[in-house]
Amino acid sequence: MNINTIGIIGGKGKMGRLFEPIFKRYAKKVLLSDMTSNEKIAKESDVLVFTVPIASTIEVIESLLPLIRKDQLLLDFTSIKEKPCEAMLKSSASVIGMHPMFGPSVQTLEGQTVVLCPVRPDEWLDWIVDLLRKEKATVIQTTPEKHDRMMAVVQCLVHFTSLLFSKTMKEEGINPEELFQYASPVYRMQLYIAGRIANQSAELYRDIQFQNPAFEKTLENMTESFETMKSTILKHDGDKFEETFKEIQDFLGPEILDEGQTMTNMFIKLMRSSC
Amino acid sequence: MNINTIGIIGGKGKMGRLFEPIFKRYAKKVLLSDMTSNEKIAKESDVLVFTVPIASTIEVIESLLPLIRKDQLLLDFTSIKEKPCEAMLKSSASVIGMHPMFGPSVQTLEGQTVVLCPVRPDEWLDWIVDLLRKEKATVIQTTPEKHDRMMAVVQCLVHFTSLLFSKTMKEEGINPEELFQYASPVYRMQLYIAGRIANQSAELYRDIQFQNPAFEKTLENMTESFETMKSTILKHDGDKFEETFKEIQDFLGPEILDEGQTMTNMFIKLMRSSC
Repeated sequence: MNINTIGIIGGKGKMGRLFEPIFKRYAKKVLLSDMTSNEKIAKESDVLVFTVPIASTIEVIESLLPLIRKDQLLLDFTSIKEKPCEAMLKSSASVIGMHPMFGPSVQTLEGQTVVLCPVRPDEWLDWIVDLLRKEKATVIQTTPEKHDRMMAVVQCLVHFTSLLFSKTMKEEGINPEELFQYASPVYRMQLYIAGRIANQSAELYRDIQFQNPAFEKTLENMTESFETMKSTILKHDGDKFEETFKEIQDFLGPEILDEGQTMTNMFIKLMRSSC
Repeated sequence: MNINTIGIIGGKGKMGRLFEPIFKRYAKKVLLSDMTSNEKIAKESDVLVFTVPIASTIEVIESLLPLIRKDQLLLDFTSIKEKPCEAMLKSSASVIGMHPMFGPSVQTLEGQTVVLCPVRPDEWLDWIVDLLRKEKATVIQTTPEKHDRMMAVVQCLVHFTSLLFSKTMKEEGINPEELFQYASPVYRMQLYIAGRIANQSAELYRDIQFQNPAFEKTLENMTESFETMKSTILKHDGDKFEETFKEIQDFLGPEILDEGQTMTNMFIKLMRSSC
């Protein structure tokens, strides 16, 4: 496939800048829009990529719909896929939702996972899969609904768990430096994850939590699990605790138990040597 | 101080076996009791160490109280300190609560943290501190109450958080292997912690959660934080979300944010190279 122009709406953001040199290897021109030039770039591009904050994605896509032609490919980099894909499908163009599962701090796509939701891919699917494989990314294809359901766990639930851990500690009124003195290795790992997450942008995390339609159900599951576990502890119900523990062991399975032990042992060694 | 005999009640368990060769460097004899020989060992020892399951600790200590003399030192290795110290103080002996903050999988005490609660140490405190320092452990001294309050966070809260994360995933009805395909690096780290924790003994974790008197208050704090965060998300209250996020950033402080980023970057590198 011969691509003349790839246009990136929101291209002057960090993800746009990461992808600019990559896309340059597969098109004659890559145009970056800082929002003022959206319309011009939408018209000139064969492939139009949206990488703008989640909360503005739908609005930005819809504002350009009247300009979009059938022979173009629309792609978006949003962390949720159902709503942006719906918005892009209102055009007559080809549409592939795309979620690069990493932040702009990576150097290359090598070894990174990219999820594709080819909702109306036409002849473009091979092109983008080929491009990503040449860049050595791991490509997963699924539906927007399934993508969002998976993200409700691998993003929303992980972020929520870490923020809940931090917020609870804060409410305890104990200084984290003092806690650190008493830190077990697992506590230190959990605290480092909390530090990493709190070191990112509140807006990004807010949008991931607010905009994923599948997270509401996950939060309901979490509420039930929380209440069951809390009452098990307050009632000192040993049988119920062991049943829950066994349930979790069976669910994770021997492979993740093993790998978890091995990998965290390696993390602990690393923490010790970096002290 | 010239020690003839150190007796370890529950000494044939893993922690007893770890400490046997260590104690041998500081006493003429180390006796290990498998519970059948408790009384004999209690009488013969200058220093008597209790390392039995948390749920049996009080009972085992109380069963030996009538045999304990004023010139002995009682030590225990329990993960909680308030109740075991109270039980040991019912004797006329010297009493130091001790919590080795690590599992029996370590090879030596070098670089490990040991918490001491010298509740009636008499002349023994220097002896045990000196022993631990010679073994290159980090020694922290505090009260049983403060120890338990710290453990409510660094142990109970961490374990609870991880079990809640796993239980919620299980209720989602998604296979963890399938989730793993979509894993972001932070999800993988969280899953490895979950695997490590679920790979331990249900009994140990049950006892830590059930027996720590300070965890009830932590669970109340967690309930409030959970409800606030959940309602913030369900109501899409952006201002409140950003306020909570900022609160967490301020609480953790720039050092933990930085260190969290650096250390988790190293974990991610390690995960990538071990794929």
